[in-house]
Amino acid sequence: MARKANKSNVVAYPGKKAARPAEKPADTGVPRQDETKVMALDLPPGTLSPAMQAYFDKCREKLGFVPNVLLAYAFDNAKLEAFAAFYNDLMLAPSGLSKLEREMIAVAVSSQNRCYYCLTAHGAAVRVYSGDPALGELMAMNYRAAKLTKKQRAMLDFAVKMTNESYAIEEEDRETLRRAGFSDRDIWDIAAVAGFFNMSNRIASATDMRPNTVYHGQGR
Amino acid sequence: MARKANKSNVVAYPGKKAARPAEKPADTGVPRQDETKVMALDLPPGTLSPAMQAYFDKCREKLGFVPNVLLAYAFDNAKLEAFAAFYNDLMLAPSGLSKLEREMIAVAVSSQNRCYYCLTAHGAAVRVYSGDPALGELMAMNYRAAKLTKKQRAMLDFAVKMTNESYAIEEEDRETLRRAGFSDRDIWDIAAVAGFFNMSNRIASATDMRPNTVYHGQGR
Amino acid sequence: MARKANKSNVVAYPGKKAARPAEKPADTGVPRQDETKVMALDLPPGTLSPAMQAYFDKCREKLGFVPNVLLAYAFDNAKLEAFAAFYNDLMLAPSGLSKLEREMIAVAVSSQNRCYYCLTAHGAAVRVYSGDPALGELMAMNYRAAKLTKKQRAMLDFAVKMTNESYAIEEEDRETLRRAGFSDRDIWDIAAVAGFFNMSNRIASATDMRPNTVYHGQGR
Amino acid sequence: MARKANKSNVVAYPGKKAARPAEKPADTGVPRQDETKVMALDLPPGTLSPAMQAYFDKCREKLGFVPNVLLAYAFDNAKLEAFAAFYNDLMLAPSGLSKLEREMIAVAVSSQNRCYYCLTAHGAAVRVYSGDPALGELMAMNYRAAKLTKKQRAMLDFAVKMTNESYAIEEEDRETLRRAGFSDRDIWDIAAVAGFFNMSNRIASATDMRPNTVYHGQGR
Amino acid sequence: MARKANKSNVVAYPGKKAARPAEKPADTGVPRQDETKVMALDLPPGTLSPAMQAYFDKCREKLGFVPNVLLAYAFDNAKLEAFAAFYNDLMLAPSGLSKLEREMIAVAVSSQNRCYYCLTAHGAAVRVYSGDPALGELMAMNYRAAKLTKKQRAMLDFAVKMTNESYAIEEEDRETLRRAGFSDRDIWDIAAVAGFFNMSNRIASATDMRPNTVYHGQGR
Amino acid sequence: MARKANKSNVVAYPGKKAARPAEKPADTGVPRQDETKVMALDLPPGTLSPAMQAYFDKCREKLGFVPNVLLAYAFDNAKLEAFAAFYNDLMLAPSGLSKLEREMIAVAVSSQNRCYYCLTAHGAAVRVYSGDPALGELMAMNYRAAKLTKKQRAMLDFAVKMTNESYAIEEEDRETLRRAGFSDRDIWDIAAVAGFFNMSNRIASATDMRPNTVYHGQGR
Repeated sequence: MARKANKSNVVAYPGKKAARPAEKPADTGVPRQDETKVMALDLPPGTLSPAMQAYFDKCREKLGFVPNVLLAYAFDNAKLEAFAAFYNDLMLAPSGLSKLEREMIAVAVSSQNRCYYCLTAHGAAVRVYSGDPALGELMAMNYRAAKLTKKQRAMLDFAVKMTNESYAIEEEDRETLRRAGFSDRDIWDIAAVAGFFNMSNRIASATDMRPNTVYHGQGR
Repeated sequence: MARKANKSNVVAYPGKKAARPAEKPADTGVPRQDETKVMALDLPPGTLSPAMQAYFDKCREKLGFVPNVLLAYAFDNAKLEAFAAFYNDLMLAPSGLSKLEREMIAVAVSSQNRCYYCLTAHGAAVRVYSGDPALGELMAMNYRAAKLTKKQRAMLDFAVKMTNESYAIEEEDRETLRRAGFSDRDIWDIAAVAGFFNMSNRIASATDMRPNTVYHGQGR
Repeated sequence: MARKANKSNVVAYPGKKAARPAEKPADTGVPRQDETKVMALDLPPGTLSPAMQAYFDKCREKLGFVPNVLLAYAFDNAKLEAFAAFYNDLMLAPSGLSKLEREMIAVAVSSQNRCYYCLTAHGAAVRVYSGDPALGELMAMNYRAAKLTKKQRAMLDFAVKMTNESYAIEEEDRETLRRAGFSDRDIWDIAAVAGFFNMSNRIASATDMRPNTVYHGQGR
Repeated sequence: MARKANKSNVVAYPGKKAARPAEKPADTGVPRQDETKVMALDLPPGTLSPAMQAYFDKCREKLGFVPNVLLAYAFDNAKLEAFAAFYNDLMLAPSGLSKLEREMIAVAVSSQNRCYYCLTAHGAAVRVYSGDPALGELMAMNYRAAKLTKKQRAMLDFAVKMTNESYAIEEEDRETLRRAGFSDRDIWDIAAVAGFFNMSNRIASATDMRPNTVYHGQGR
Repeated sequence: MARKANKSNVVAYPGKKAARPAEKPADTGVPRQDETKVMALDLPPGTLSPAMQAYFDKCREKLGFVPNVLLAYAFDNAKLEAFAAFYNDLMLAPSGLSKLEREMIAVAVSSQNRCYYCLTAHGAAVRVYSGDPALGELMAMNYRAAKLTKKQRAMLDFAVKMTNESYAIEEEDRETLRRAGFSDRDIWDIAAVAGFFNMSNRIASATDMRPNTVYHGQGR
Repeated sequence: MARKANKSNVVAYPGKKAARPAEKPADTGVPRQDETKVMALDLPPGTLSPAMQAYFDKCREKLGFVPNVLLAYAFDNAKLEAFAAFYNDLMLAPSGLSKLEREMIAVAVSSQNRCYYCLTAHGAAVRVYSGDPALGELMAMNYRAAKLTKKQRAMLDFAVKMTNESYAIEEEDRETLRRAGFSDRDIWDIAAVAGFFNMSNRIASATDMRPNTVYHGQGR
């Protein structure tokens, strides 16, 4: 391998002009990360029920695309319906947790499990809901480095403990949440969201589910 | 603490007669593990829909009891319905995996997460479906010590890798399953069951969900 | 693999009638877990000393069988004698810990190491000594979920810390035991039992030692 | 806590209009992640040598800002000079590894150590050098999910093994790199870059070093 | 804290003359590591049997001291006798493994468990038996960095796997040992020694057992 | 493999006379650990600048040898100079930490990473600087077992937390150091030394760097 000379050897980071290079794909030697498949399993789409067709239409209308996780489940309409109902109740139904807080749990959990799909899709949701790009990055990189209220921190600590050593959770952990101001119903919701992404992260990794490219730019 | 003398000091294990002692609770000094609560969260039961009432009735008729996980969700009928639909599709719908195999995945995953509720309830299911008490114990204690077909072993290895390091799953792991005889649809089902119990284990531990006592004796 | 239809698709758990199926071995597709070998090493039994013959006879008389761990050591009478003496002093000699408490340590430690032999044999001992099947299961599955006195919990926490990160034990950990009511002599005994099963678990796993089948049903 | 109603309860992800909300800071309840401090240690800037002043000027001219890591070291000019010389040789000197490849190692290593500073600053560098935003995200989230040449993958596998279990690296690991096409000199460079970020990640986390906000938007 | 000036700032390591400083204890500020207690538990010595008295006398005559592990057990003559018999059979009885090899296992295992007592006492034994100080250091620091025969390496890999993940040992691991030239009897002995030190390491750490100072200088 | 008989089967440890055996290499069957290579990479030495030549001469004069880490870097004079400048500022420049304390951090960190090179070279430095051989061993084996001031213990706890879970360090950890008496400048130095050895350990392991044999005997 030939030594690659480097002209401007003073500053480590590329200058501004480099920020929009025209001919990158040709010379970096790294393959382009264009996601064209929904997942690694070859499961042809099944027949969608009218309800699911309407759901997909609504996604296209409101989001501009159907999230790949839904396309992944579309091989079996019954599974898709069960998943969508379960997911929408979890993330959208009334709760003591705001939708942003539920997304923060989603990303903090997905960070522990290093799930590319969920970090990308729900990292975008945190950026969009909060209007704060750095918050999305912090949830994905290390939630401990974020500036949070004590209550939010307690919520994420519980979700992450559930992720990494659920067998060690005891009454004391629930009491910590209660002291932080969460009701028993809120604790259920924290547990339900954290549990759910421990499922989704694993199914996404097991099937190599790929996030829609559009997520990368949302809320930046 | 007084030294407790020990009369029969040759054999370490208690003799046969000791197997059904009459007065244990009084003298062991260890509290009786009688489960009277469904979980540690105080969530009063909500109003069940007719469908869910019928479901509970069917449980009582067929099983003799309503599994505590369903009672735990009963504080919110919408959540209960979403959970029951999702669960029943997963564990009972037609699949390339037998119901026993799905229960074996459930227990092997729950063993990694040390979930008392799921190990007890699904350990019972493995014993009952297989008619082999030792198989249930092996799934709960260390599935690697069980005598399995290569295909079943590959299935459990994948489920356990999903549990412990899902971020490290790659095409090679899926190829191993295909070579063992699983279709892509089967792989989805393995991933879905393993993913689900990674959720359920964590929700059960987070809420200290307790298994119905009756499970302990089933299939012994 | 053909899709296996499922007639009763409402209730996930098998009904009562299924609890004693007659023809399981034929149709589950999972090999029967019948243990016929003592361990995976091929070591022909040596000549037992009269003392060891008497010990085996006593086992057969009192327990109805010779525990496989003793049969495993029987290839070398000197090793068998050293092991039996060491073991019996540990588990049966007078101590501030009751025999049940020593067995609880044995099972909690074996759970960390996922040792099939010791979980089975000593799980049975916990059930029999306590008369409480759930206690045996809790020690094997997750001792943190058990209802225990503070003193018993401190004892098991110490034993499990010894198992998982013995290098991190410090005076503070011993002080916690003393404050819970244990004498220095008791602490030695806790350490000795926890240490011993960290040895036995590993030897059993290294040699694939198999528990006598009879243990599975004891104390249920 | 009052239940927060949710009007559009069909689609989980926020619609396009939500992408640029005007009034977020007011109503999310999550503090704004505005980084105003360079790090958590209170070390007043020292007197810069003319060489270091010129270096900072060049940064401002070429990048538009001085990277916070340099400001962090500025409390002691000797340390700043030693760090800058060491860093610039590592990342900019001629090497068999391209600058992009070195940045990819930087990010993959920083992902293991969950270092907010380095993931942000070097994630930006990967996006800019490659012109591929998804590549930067993949290095930060889970490099195993990226589409890479076999050689690049071998490079990152070695860097990550160095990060997580350097004590287990053996001749076989170096041989794998050689077979992938790396020279011994290249292996040194891989090791040097991976080693360096294992240092930087830890110093950044130990001092809570904060990345310049501008990085978040670069190369998106 | 005043800045401590440093006169000779070119070479990082102290010069030869520094190798035997006269006045260290006074000025380093680090307490002297003089071991005066056998362990942290306060257990007064019991009455030794004539056999154990003779054993201690033999230790003093041959080694010049009684190893502290024996003094630790001396609070109870029965335990001391059981331990000594078990230990001496293990480490000194005829075996396919040389005494040096058994000590190498002891140290490699103790390194995983970071046991100060066993690393010191058995590290000395490796140095003395082998006449190679570097071998003792390598076993204590990282056995993978040592120059070993393939057979010895297989032996230590098995012992270390037993230590760190005994639950994952399977027939394949035993087959690896057999292919390396070990008989089933040898495998038992490897397992027995590795198992034993997993016990001893933990008892030593649990009781803060301190090695006799004389070990530090042996075989250097 | 023939059973190796053992004449003196009472005492486990070799007697005094065995301490300086004449003919070991022949009969132990374990290869001699003579280090003749600097590292596993084949990188021919480059041309040293006069400054580096003088530095090597000074090493030979003061230490009697050139540390192998410097010889390893000598393939590229620019890298050697950058490394030496960085290293010497770190370990020898004025600091609130004594040189011994910096070496203690070096060894405690290297112990976590099991780096043979650094444990050997810096273990020697701790023994020589402190005049206490046991202190060097304790840093290498398990710093938690050492007798230290509270301040030194806090310093090492921080360095080890940085090593094992740097992502979990928070303001509370820095506050603990401040309360123990460290200034913010001292905290930087602790972080810088701990960070550095996390780099060096990994580069040494990645290249199989071998310590100069002379270190083994220093300060014993």
